[in-house]
Amino acid sequence: LAAIAETLEGLEETIIVKLIDRAQFSRNSVIYQPGMSGFAGEPSLSLFELRMLYQERMDAEFGRFCVPEERPFCEDLPAPKRSVNLPATGLAIADLNHVNLTPRILRAYLDLIPRLCREGSDGHYGSSVEHDVYAIQAVARRIHYGAFYVAESKYQESEAAYRAMIDRGDRAAIMSSLTRAEVEERIVARVREKTEGMQSRVNARVRHVVDPAVVVEFYLQTVIPLTKEGEVQYLLQRRQS
Amino acid sequence: LAAIAETLEGLEETIIVKLIDRAQFSRNSVIYQPGMSGFAGEPSLSLFELRMLYQERMDAEFGRFCVPEERPFCEDLPAPKRSVNLPATGLAIADLNHVNLTPRILRAYLDLIPRLCREGSDGHYGSSVEHDVYAIQAVARRIHYGAFYVAESKYQESEAAYRAMIDRGDRAAIMSSLTRAEVEERIVARVREKTEGMQSRVNARVRHVVDPAVVVEFYLQTVIPLTKEGEVQYLLQRRQS
Repeated sequence: LAAIAETLEGLEETIIVKLIDRAQFSRNSVIYQPGMSGFAGEPSLSLFELRMLYQERMDAEFGRFCVPEERPFCEDLPAPKRSVNLPATGLAIADLNHVNLTPRILRAYLDLIPRLCREGSDGHYGSSVEHDVYAIQAVARRIHYGAFYVAESKYQESEAAYRAMIDRGDRAAIMSSLTRAEVEERIVARVREKTEGMQSRVNARVRHVVDPAVVVEFYLQTVIPLTKEGEVQYLLQRRQS
Repeated sequence: LAAIAETLEGLEETIIVKLIDRAQFSRNSVIYQPGMSGFAGEPSLSLFELRMLYQERMDAEFGRFCVPEERPFCEDLPAPKRSVNLPATGLAIADLNHVNLTPRILRAYLDLIPRLCREGSDGHYGSSVEHDVYAIQAVARRIHYGAFYVAESKYQESEAAYRAMIDRGDRAAIMSSLTRAEVEERIVARVREKTEGMQSRVNARVRHVVDPAVVVEFYLQTVIPLTKEGEVQYLLQRRQS
Protein backbone atom coordinates (compact mmCIF):
# COMPACT_ATOMS: atom_id res chain seq x y z
CA LEU A 1 0.00 0.00 0.00
CA ALA A 2 2.90 2.37 0.73
CA ALA A 3 4.34 1.80 -2.76
CA ILE A 4 0.94 2.43 -4.30
CA ALA A 5 0.54 5.63 -2.31
CA GLU A 6 3.93 6.76 -3.59
CA THR A 7 2.95 6.13 -7.19
CA LEU A 8 -0.25 8.11 -6.66
CA GLU A 9 1.84 10.89 -5.17
CA GLY A 10 4.10 10.87 -8.22
CA LEU A 11 1.07 11.12 -10.51
CA GLU A 12 0.03 14.32 -8.71
CA GLU A 13 2.87 16.30 -10.28
CA THR A 14 1.80 15.14 -13.70
CA ILE A 15 -1.81 16.17 -13.17
CA ILE A 16 -0.89 19.58 -11.77
CA VAL A 17 1.63 20.30 -14.51
CA LYS A 18 -0.78 19.36 -17.25
CA LEU A 19 -3.59 21.43 -15.80
CA ILE A 20 -1.22 24.40 -15.61
CA ASP A 21 -0.20 23.76 -19.22
CA ARG A 22 -3.80 23.79 -20.39
CA ALA A 23 -4.40 27.01 -18.46
CA GLN A 24 -1.84 28.79 -20.63
CA PHE A 25 -4.56 28.96 -23.28
CA SER A 26 -7.94 30.64 -22.98
CA ARG A 27 -11.11 28.71 -22.43
CA ASN A 28 -11.85 28.61 -26.18
CA SER A 29 -15.38 27.24 -25.72
CA VAL A 30 -15.85 26.57 -29.42
CA ILE A 31 -13.50 23.59 -29.22
CA TYR A 32 -16.05 21.76 -27.06
CA GLN A 33 -19.02 22.44 -29.33
CA PRO A 34 -20.22 19.49 -31.42
CA GLY A 35 -20.04 20.08 -35.14
CA MET A 36 -17.74 23.09 -34.77
CA SER A 37 -14.41 21.36 -35.31
CA GLY A 38 -13.95 22.61 -38.87
CA PHE A 39 -12.48 19.17 -39.55
CA ALA A 40 -13.02 17.85 -43.06
CA GLY A 41 -15.44 14.93 -43.09
CA GLU A 42 -16.33 15.27 -39.40
CA PRO A 43 -19.66 17.08 -39.19
CA SER A 44 -20.75 16.05 -35.71
CA LEU A 45 -17.90 15.84 -33.20
CA SER A 46 -16.24 18.74 -31.41
CA LEU A 47 -12.56 19.49 -32.00
CA PHE A 48 -11.85 18.21 -28.50
CA GLU A 49 -13.69 14.94 -29.14
CA LEU A 50 -11.82 14.47 -32.40
CA ARG A 51 -8.46 15.07 -30.82
CA MET A 52 -9.30 12.58 -28.10
CA LEU A 53 -10.35 10.00 -30.67
CA TYR A 54 -7.25 10.44 -32.82
CA GLN A 55 -4.98 10.38 -29.77
CA GLU A 56 -6.59 7.23 -28.38
CA ARG A 57 -6.46 5.47 -31.74
CA MET A 58 -2.73 6.14 -31.87
CA ASP A 59 -2.25 5.22 -28.24
CA ALA A 60 -4.24 2.01 -28.73
CA GLU A 61 -1.89 0.94 -31.53
CA PHE A 62 1.07 1.58 -29.24
CA GLY A 63 -0.54 -0.61 -26.55
CA ARG A 64 -1.48 2.02 -23.99
CA PHE A 65 -4.73 0.35 -22.99
CA CYS A 66 -3.05 -2.93 -22.12
CA VAL A 67 -2.05 -1.10 -18.93
CA PRO A 68 -4.77 -1.40 -16.24
CA GLU A 69 -4.72 2.24 -15.17
CA GLU A 70 -4.99 3.47 -18.76
CA ARG A 71 -8.71 3.22 -19.48
CA PRO A 72 -9.92 4.70 -22.76
CA PHE A 73 -12.48 7.45 -23.18
CA CYS A 74 -13.47 6.28 -26.68
CA GLU A 75 -14.89 3.03 -27.97
CA ASP A 76 -14.03 0.81 -30.94
CA LEU A 77 -10.31 1.52 -30.77
CA PRO A 78 -7.85 -0.46 -32.89
CA ALA A 79 -5.90 -3.42 -31.49
CA PRO A 80 -2.28 -2.89 -30.39
CA LYS A 81 0.33 -3.21 -33.11
CA ARG A 82 3.02 -4.22 -30.65
CA SER A 83 3.05 -6.77 -27.89
CA VAL A 84 3.24 -5.20 -24.47
CA ASN A 85 4.96 -7.29 -21.83
CA LEU A 86 3.66 -6.25 -18.47
CA PRO A 87 4.56 -7.67 -15.11
CA ALA A 88 1.62 -9.55 -13.54
CA THR A 89 -0.82 -6.97 -12.24
CA GLY A 90 -2.22 -9.02 -9.36
CA LEU A 91 -5.69 -7.77 -10.21
CA ALA A 92 -8.62 -10.19 -10.13
CA ILE A 93 -11.25 -8.84 -12.47
CA ALA A 94 -12.59 -10.33 -15.68
CA ASP A 95 -12.39 -7.16 -17.78
CA LEU A 96 -10.49 -4.03 -16.81
CA ASN A 97 -13.11 -1.92 -18.55
CA HIS A 98 -15.67 -3.01 -15.97
CA VAL A 99 -14.04 -0.27 -13.91
CA ASN A 100 -14.09 2.69 -16.23
CA LEU A 101 -14.81 6.10 -14.78
CA THR A 102 -14.03 8.00 -17.96
CA PRO A 103 -17.57 9.32 -18.62
CA ARG A 104 -17.63 10.93 -15.19
CA ILE A 105 -14.03 12.13 -15.47
CA LEU A 106 -14.90 13.76 -18.76
CA ARG A 107 -17.87 15.64 -17.32
CA ALA A 108 -15.90 16.80 -14.30
CA TYR A 109 -12.98 17.90 -16.45
CA LEU A 110 -15.18 19.94 -18.77
CA ASP A 111 -16.74 21.59 -15.70
CA LEU A 112 -13.25 22.46 -14.47
CA ILE A 113 -12.19 24.30 -17.63
CA PRO A 114 -14.04 27.59 -16.94
CA ARG A 115 -12.41 27.78 -13.50
CA LEU A 116 -8.96 26.78 -14.79
CA CYS A 117 -8.65 28.96 -17.89
CA ARG A 118 -9.02 32.61 -18.72
CA GLU A 119 -12.38 33.45 -20.24
CA GLY A 120 -12.65 34.05 -23.97
CA SER A 121 -10.85 32.87 -27.05
CA ASP A 122 -7.20 33.25 -28.07
CA GLY A 123 -7.40 31.26 -31.31
CA HIS A 124 -5.10 28.49 -30.03
CA TYR A 125 -7.66 25.77 -30.61
CA GLY A 126 -5.25 23.05 -31.68
CA SER A 127 -2.97 23.59 -28.69
CA SER A 128 -5.91 23.75 -26.29
CA VAL A 129 -7.35 20.39 -27.30
CA GLU A 130 -3.89 18.87 -27.36
CA HIS A 131 -3.32 19.91 -23.76
CA ASP A 132 -6.87 18.97 -22.76
CA VAL A 133 -6.22 15.43 -23.85
CA TYR A 134 -2.90 15.18 -22.00
CA ALA A 135 -4.45 16.59 -18.84
CA ILE A 136 -7.53 14.40 -18.85
CA GLN A 137 -5.41 11.32 -19.54
CA ALA A 138 -3.28 12.14 -16.51
CA VAL A 139 -6.38 12.53 -14.34
CA ALA A 140 -7.85 9.25 -15.59
CA ARG A 141 -4.57 7.43 -15.01
CA ARG A 142 -4.46 8.52 -11.37
CA ILE A 143 -8.09 7.65 -10.71
CA HIS A 144 -7.91 4.19 -12.27
CA TYR A 145 -4.53 3.43 -10.74
CA GLY A 146 -5.97 4.14 -7.32
CA ALA A 147 -9.21 2.32 -8.08
CA PHE A 148 -7.47 -0.91 -9.05
CA TYR A 149 -4.42 -1.09 -6.86
CA VAL A 150 -5.59 0.55 -3.65
CA ALA A 151 -8.73 -1.61 -3.70
CA GLU A 152 -6.85 -4.82 -4.41
CA SER A 153 -4.32 -4.05 -1.73
CA LYS A 154 -7.01 -3.36 0.87
CA TYR A 155 -8.78 -6.56 -0.14
CA GLN A 156 -5.56 -8.51 0.39
CA GLU A 157 -5.15 -6.96 3.83
CA SER A 158 -8.66 -7.90 5.05
CA GLU A 159 -9.96 -10.51 2.68
CA ALA A 160 -12.64 -12.00 4.95
CA ALA A 161 -14.13 -8.65 5.88
CA TYR A 162 -14.24 -7.47 2.26
CA ARG A 163 -15.64 -10.77 1.02
CA ALA A 164 -18.51 -10.44 3.51
CA MET A 165 -19.29 -6.86 2.42
CA ILE A 166 -19.02 -7.83 -1.25
CA ASP A 167 -21.32 -10.83 -0.82
CA ARG A 168 -23.87 -8.62 0.91
CA GLY A 169 -23.42 -6.08 -1.91
CA ASP A 170 -22.94 -3.54 0.87
CA ARG A 171 -21.68 -0.58 -1.14
CA ALA A 172 -21.96 1.84 1.79
CA ALA A 173 -19.87 -0.33 4.10
CA ILE A 174 -17.24 -0.80 1.41
CA MET A 175 -17.10 2.94 0.75
CA SER A 176 -16.80 3.67 4.43
CA SER A 177 -13.99 1.12 4.82
CA LEU A 178 -12.09 2.86 2.02
CA THR A 179 -12.38 6.36 3.45
CA ARG A 180 -9.56 7.72 5.55
CA ALA A 181 -10.06 11.39 6.18
CA GLU A 182 -6.51 12.00 7.40
CA VAL A 183 -5.01 10.55 4.20
CA GLU A 184 -7.31 12.69 2.08
CA GLU A 185 -6.37 15.80 4.04
CA ARG A 186 -2.70 15.04 3.53
CA ILE A 187 -3.20 14.64 -0.21
CA VAL A 188 -5.08 17.91 -0.46
CA ALA A 189 -2.44 19.81 1.50
CA ARG A 190 0.27 18.37 -0.72
CA VAL A 191 -1.60 19.27 -3.91
CA ARG A 192 -1.98 22.84 -2.70
CA GLU A 193 1.72 23.08 -1.85
CA LYS A 194 2.84 21.59 -5.12
CA THR A 195 0.61 23.83 -7.21
CA GLU A 196 2.07 26.83 -5.40
CA GLY A 197 5.63 25.51 -5.50
CA MET A 198 5.62 24.71 -9.20
CA GLN A 199 4.51 28.22 -10.02
CA SER A 200 6.62 30.00 -7.43
CA ARG A 201 9.35 31.21 -9.80
CA VAL A 202 7.11 31.88 -12.73
CA ASN A 203 6.82 35.26 -14.38
CA ALA A 204 3.11 36.05 -14.13
CA ARG A 205 3.29 38.37 -17.13
CA VAL A 206 4.37 35.41 -19.25
CA ARG A 207 2.39 32.55 -17.75
CA HIS A 208 -1.15 32.34 -16.50
CA VAL A 209 -0.89 31.37 -12.85
CA VAL A 210 -3.45 28.82 -11.70
CA ASP A 211 -5.11 29.39 -8.34
CA PRO A 212 -4.13 26.39 -6.15
CA ALA A 213 -7.67 26.42 -4.72
CA VAL A 214 -9.02 25.39 -8.13
CA VAL A 215 -6.77 22.33 -8.27
CA VAL A 216 -7.53 21.49 -4.63
CA GLU A 217 -11.25 21.67 -5.29
CA PHE A 218 -10.87 19.40 -8.30
CA TYR A 219 -9.07 16.87 -6.12
CA LEU A 220 -11.74 17.10 -3.42
CA GLN A 221 -14.74 16.95 -5.71
CA THR A 222 -13.48 14.70 -8.47
CA VAL A 223 -10.15 12.94 -8.15
CA ILE A 224 -10.59 11.54 -4.64
CA PRO A 225 -14.32 10.64 -4.86
CA LEU A 226 -14.00 9.03 -8.29
CA THR A 227 -10.99 7.02 -7.16
CA LYS A 228 -13.06 5.66 -4.27
CA GLU A 229 -16.03 5.03 -6.54
CA GLY A 230 -13.69 3.02 -8.79
CA GLU A 231 -12.40 1.08 -5.78
CA VAL A 232 -15.96 0.14 -4.84
CA GLN A 233 -16.70 -0.94 -8.41
CA TYR A 234 -13.56 -3.03 -8.51
CA LEU A 235 -14.32 -4.76 -5.21
CA LEU A 236 -17.93 -5.49 -6.13
CA GLN A 237 -16.71 -7.25 -9.27
CA ARG A 238 -13.63 -8.84 -7.80
CA ARG A 239 -13.30 -12.58 -8.35
CA GLN A 240 -13.26 -14.78 -5.29
CA SER A 241 -9.79 -16.04 -4.48
CA LEU B 1 11.40 42.02 -28.93
CA ALA B 2 10.31 42.15 -25.28
CA ALA B 3 7.11 40.25 -26.08
CA ILE B 4 9.11 37.63 -27.98
CA ALA B 5 11.53 37.25 -25.09
CA GLU B 6 8.56 36.72 -22.77
CA THR B 7 7.15 34.00 -24.99
CA LEU B 8 10.55 32.30 -25.05
CA GLU B 9 10.64 32.55 -21.28
CA GLY B 10 7.21 30.93 -21.07
CA LEU B 11 8.38 28.07 -23.29
CA GLU B 12 11.17 27.33 -20.81
CA GLU B 13 8.75 25.92 -18.25
CA THR B 14 7.34 23.61 -20.87
CA ILE B 15 10.74 22.30 -21.88
CA ILE B 16 11.89 21.78 -18.30
CA VAL B 17 8.66 20.06 -17.26
CA LYS B 18 8.73 17.72 -20.22
CA LEU B 19 12.36 16.80 -19.70
CA ILE B 20 11.58 16.04 -16.05
CA ASP B 21 8.59 13.94 -17.18
CA ARG B 22 10.77 11.89 -19.52
CA ALA B 23 13.30 11.39 -16.74
CA GLN B 24 10.69 9.54 -14.68
CA PHE B 25 11.41 6.54 -16.93
CA SER B 26 14.72 4.79 -17.38
CA ARG B 27 16.86 5.27 -20.44
CA ASN B 28 15.35 2.20 -22.14
CA SER B 29 17.89 2.21 -24.99
CA VAL B 30 16.03 -0.41 -26.99
CA ILE B 31 13.37 2.15 -27.91
CA TYR B 32 15.94 4.02 -30.00
CA GLN B 33 17.20 0.96 -31.87
CA PRO B 34 16.04 0.63 -35.48
CA GLY B 35 14.04 -2.51 -36.17
CA MET B 36 13.45 -3.19 -32.45
CA SER B 37 10.01 -1.58 -32.13
CA GLY B 38 8.10 -4.87 -32.10
CA PHE B 39 5.50 -3.01 -34.16
CA ALA B 40 3.56 -5.13 -36.62
CA GLY B 41 4.49 -4.30 -40.20
CA GLU B 42 7.30 -1.94 -39.20
CA PRO B 43 10.58 -3.83 -39.60
CA SER B 44 12.99 -0.93 -39.83
CA LEU B 45 12.12 2.01 -37.59
CA SER B 46 12.72 2.30 -33.86
CA LEU B 47 9.78 2.59 -31.47
CA PHE B 48 10.77 6.22 -30.90
CA GLU B 49 10.81 6.96 -34.63
CA LEU B 50 7.42 5.30 -35.04
CA ARG B 51 5.87 7.25 -32.22
CA MET B 52 7.23 10.48 -33.69
CA LEU B 53 5.81 9.58 -37.10
CA TYR B 54 2.37 8.68 -35.76
CA GLN B 55 2.27 11.77 -33.56
CA GLU B 56 3.28 14.08 -36.39
CA ARG B 57 0.79 12.52 -38.80
CA MET B 58 -1.97 13.21 -36.27
CA ASP B 59 -0.63 16.68 -35.51
CA ALA B 60 -0.39 17.47 -39.23
CA GLU B 61 -4.08 16.64 -39.69
CA PHE B 62 -4.91 18.99 -36.81
CA GLY B 63 -2.89 21.75 -38.50
CA ARG B 64 0.09 21.97 -36.14
CA PHE B 65 2.62 22.64 -38.87
CA CYS B 66 0.74 25.65 -40.17
CA VAL B 67 2.29 27.41 -37.16
CA PRO B 68 5.76 28.78 -38.00
CA GLU B 69 7.48 27.60 -34.83
CA GLU B 70 6.12 24.07 -35.22
CA ARG B 71 8.53 22.50 -37.69
CA PRO B 72 8.14 18.77 -38.30
CA PHE B 73 10.76 16.10 -37.74
CA CYS B 74 9.23 13.76 -40.33
CA GLU B 75 8.60 14.13 -44.04
CA ASP B 76 5.60 13.35 -46.26
CA LEU B 77 3.05 14.26 -43.61
CA PRO B 78 -0.66 14.52 -44.50
CA ALA B 79 -2.34 17.86 -45.23
CA PRO B 80 -4.37 19.54 -42.46
CA LYS B 81 -8.00 18.45 -42.19
CA ARG B 82 -9.05 21.74 -40.66
CA SER B 83 -8.36 25.28 -41.70
CA VAL B 84 -6.12 27.10 -39.27
CA ASN B 85 -6.66 30.84 -39.05
CA LEU B 86 -3.49 32.41 -37.84
CA PRO B 87 -2.83 36.08 -37.30
CA ALA B 88 -0.31 37.42 -39.84
CA THR B 89 3.13 36.20 -38.77
CA GLY B 90 5.12 39.12 -40.16
CA LEU B 91 7.75 36.68 -41.40
CA ALA B 92 9.29 37.17 -44.83
CA ILE B 93 10.46 33.78 -46.03
CA ALA B 94 9.29 31.71 -48.97
CA ASP B 95 9.00 28.41 -47.12
CA LEU B 96 9.04 28.02 -43.35
CA ASN B 97 10.81 24.68 -43.74
CA HIS B 98 13.84 26.46 -45.11
CA VAL B 99 14.58 27.04 -41.45
CA ASN B 100 14.30 23.59 -39.97
CA LEU B 101 16.73 22.59 -37.29
CA THR B 102 15.00 19.32 -36.45
CA PRO B 103 17.79 16.97 -37.60
CA ARG B 104 20.22 18.71 -35.26
CA ILE B 105 17.67 18.94 -32.45
CA LEU B 106 17.06 15.22 -32.77
CA ARG B 107 20.75 14.35 -32.49
CA ALA B 108 21.23 16.65 -29.51
CA TYR B 109 18.13 15.30 -27.77
CA LEU B 110 19.23 11.69 -28.18
CA ASP B 111 22.64 12.63 -26.76
CA LEU B 112 20.89 14.20 -23.77
CA ILE B 113 18.93 11.07 -22.81
CA PRO B 114 21.78 9.19 -21.08
CA ARG B 115 22.45 12.24 -18.90
CA LEU B 116 18.77 12.90 -18.20
CA CYS B 117 17.52 9.40 -17.38
CA ARG B 118 18.52 6.61 -15.06
CA GLU B 119 20.55 3.91 -16.77
CA GLY B 120 18.90 0.62 -17.68
CA SER B 121 15.44 -0.51 -18.61
CA ASP B 122 12.18 -0.36 -16.66
CA GLY B 123 9.93 -1.80 -19.36
CA HIS B 124 7.97 1.44 -19.81
CA TYR B 125 8.78 1.71 -23.50
CA GLY B 126 5.45 3.16 -24.61
CA SER B 127 5.50 5.89 -21.96
CA SER B 128 9.14 6.71 -22.65
CA VAL B 129 8.64 7.34 -26.35
CA GLU B 130 5.44 9.25 -25.65
CA HIS B 131 7.32 11.62 -23.34
CA ASP B 132 10.30 11.77 -25.68
CA VAL B 133 8.08 13.12 -28.41
CA TYR B 134 6.44 15.72 -26.17
CA ALA B 135 9.83 16.87 -24.89
CA ILE B 136 11.51 17.12 -28.26
CA GLN B 137 8.51 18.97 -29.70
CA ALA B 138 8.78 21.51 -26.88
CA VAL B 139 12.49 21.98 -27.58
CA ALA B 140 11.90 22.39 -31.31
CA ARG B 141 9.10 24.88 -30.70
CA ARG B 142 11.35 27.12 -28.61
CA ILE B 143 14.24 26.96 -31.05
CA HIS B 144 12.15 27.74 -34.11
CA TYR B 145 10.12 30.40 -32.33
CA GLY B 146 13.35 32.18 -31.46
CA ALA B 147 14.85 31.59 -34.89
CA PHE B 148 11.95 33.19 -36.73
CA TYR B 149 10.73 35.93 -34.46
CA VAL B 150 13.91 37.12 -32.78
CA ALA B 151 15.61 37.29 -36.17
CA GLU B 152 12.74 39.13 -37.85
CA SER B 153 12.51 41.56 -34.98
CA LYS B 154 16.22 42.33 -35.06
CA TYR B 155 16.02 42.78 -38.83
CA GLN B 156 13.20 45.27 -38.38
CA GLU B 157 15.25 47.19 -35.84
CA SER B 158 18.34 47.55 -38.08
CA GLU B 159 17.23 46.78 -41.58
CA ALA B 160 20.06 48.51 -43.44
CA ALA B 161 22.79 46.89 -41.37
CA TYR B 162 21.28 43.42 -41.73
CA ARG B 163 20.64 43.86 -45.44
CA ALA B 164 24.30 44.69 -45.94
CA MET B 165 25.46 41.62 -43.97
CA ILE B 166 22.95 39.42 -45.80
CA ASP B 167 24.00 40.69 -49.20
CA ARG B 168 27.63 39.99 -48.34
CA GLY B 169 26.56 36.54 -47.07
CA ASP B 170 28.51 37.42 -43.94
CA ARG B 171 27.38 34.64 -41.65
CA ALA B 172 29.97 35.46 -38.98
CA ALA B 173 28.92 39.10 -38.74
CA ILE B 174 25.26 38.12 -38.53
CA MET B 175 25.97 35.57 -35.82
CA SER B 176 27.99 38.08 -33.86
CA SER B 177 25.21 40.69 -34.15
CA LEU B 178 22.76 38.15 -32.68
CA THR B 179 24.88 37.22 -29.70
CA ARG B 180 24.28 38.96 -26.41
CA ALA B 181 26.19 37.23 -23.66
CA GLU B 182 24.30 38.95 -20.83
CA VAL B 183 20.94 37.76 -22.18
CA GLU B 184 22.25 34.22 -22.51
CA GLU B 185 23.57 34.30 -18.97
CA ARG B 186 20.21 35.48 -17.69
CA ILE B 187 18.42 32.67 -19.51
CA VAL B 188 20.78 30.06 -18.13
CA ALA B 189 20.42 31.35 -14.56
CA ARG B 190 16.64 31.29 -14.92
CA VAL B 191 16.63 27.75 -16.32
CA ARG B 192 18.73 26.57 -13.38
CA GLU B 193 16.41 28.26 -10.88
CA LYS B 194 13.27 26.93 -12.51
CA THR B 195 14.57 23.37 -12.69
CA GLU B 196 15.39 23.55 -8.99
CA GLY B 197 12.15 25.34 -8.08
CA MET B 198 9.87 22.94 -9.91
CA GLN B 199 11.41 20.00 -8.12
CA SER B 200 11.76 21.64 -4.72
CA ARG B 201 8.71 20.02 -3.11
CA VAL B 202 9.05 16.68 -4.79
CA ASN B 203 9.44 13.45 -2.89
CA ALA B 204 12.70 12.03 -4.22
CA ARG B 205 11.65 8.49 -3.35
CA VAL B 206 8.72 8.85 -5.76
CA ARG B 207 10.16 10.98 -8.52
CA HIS B 208 13.54 10.94 -10.21
CA VAL B 209 15.05 14.38 -9.60
CA VAL B 210 16.84 15.88 -12.59
CA ASP B 211 20.15 17.61 -11.95
CA PRO B 212 19.64 21.26 -12.98
CA ALA B 213 23.17 21.24 -14.43
CA VAL B 214 22.01 18.78 -17.10
CA VAL B 215 19.23 21.08 -18.27
CA VAL B 216 21.53 24.09 -18.11
CA GLU B 217 24.12 22.32 -20.24
CA PHE B 218 21.45 21.40 -22.76
CA TYR B 219 20.44 25.05 -22.99
CA LEU B 220 24.05 26.14 -23.38
CA GLN B 221 25.09 23.54 -25.91
CA THR B 222 21.88 23.06 -27.86
CA VAL B 223 18.91 25.35 -27.27
CA ILE B 224 20.74 28.67 -27.42
CA PRO B 225 23.22 27.83 -30.23
CA LEU B 226 20.57 26.19 -32.43
CA THR B 227 18.22 29.13 -31.94
CA LYS B 228 20.97 31.45 -33.15
CA GLU B 229 21.83 29.13 -36.03
CA GLY B 230 18.15 29.26 -37.03
CA GLU B 231 18.18 33.05 -36.82
CA VAL B 232 21.15 33.18 -39.19
CA GLN B 233 19.43 30.79 -41.60
CA TYR B 234 16.27 32.88 -41.51
CA LEU B 235 18.11 36.12 -42.16
CA LEU B 236 20.17 34.70 -45.01
CA GLN B 237 16.95 33.63 -46.72
CA ARG B 238 14.85 36.62 -45.76
CA ARG B 239 13.12 38.36 -48.64
CA GLN B 240 14.07 41.98 -49.29
CA SER B 241 11.43 44.42 -48.08
